[in-house]
Amino acid sequence: MTEENVAYVGNKPVMNYVLAVVTQMNGGISEVSIKARGRAISRAVDVAEIVRNRFITDAELGTINIRTEEILNNEGISTNVSAIEIHLSRESI
Amino acid sequence: MTEENVAYVGNKPVMNYVLAVVTQMNGGISEVSIKARGRAISRAVDVAEIVRNRFITDAELGTINIRTEEILNNEGISTNVSAIEIHLSRESI
Repeated sequence: MTEENVAYVGNKPVMNYVLAVVTQMNGGISEVSIKARGRAISRAVDVAEIVRNRFITDAELGTINIRTEEILNNEGISTNVSAIEIHLSRESI
Repeated sequence: MTEENVAYVGNKPVMNYVLAVVTQMNGGISEVSIKARGRAISRAVDVAEIVRNRFITDAELGTINIRTEEILNNEGISTNVSAIEIHLSRESI
């Protein structure tokens, strides 16, 4: 069974999320799922790329999923937003 | 052999790119590759989701690739930018 952990990427600086993912993976978690919605999707791709190019070079890109989610705003009106999920994994040491 | 065409997503309104992809696919092209870099990545995901949810409901998501590209700016200094490529296809009619 693979352990899985999720990193939700929002509007903070990209290195905050990079650090979170690197910390998880160096702590022994073999698979991390990087998730984001809307404009943060670009940042989620940055996070995955920076982690595997600069910090954990033996991390492998797994499947990348995209989908549409429905969001209710404060007035109860629903809008659609795109979402992404990027899997990064590495073999146990 | 599959025909392939490429839609580059930039900073124009999302429906411009949706229309381009829908036109290509309705013109008989069975596979379209949606590409974007940097902040336009989020928009590329929107394009793929809008095309397959609203316009071409039998279109299928293929592989999604992400990578890092090196860009030279006007002063010759290179910076890294993330890029995405989303494949949409549908069987020939």
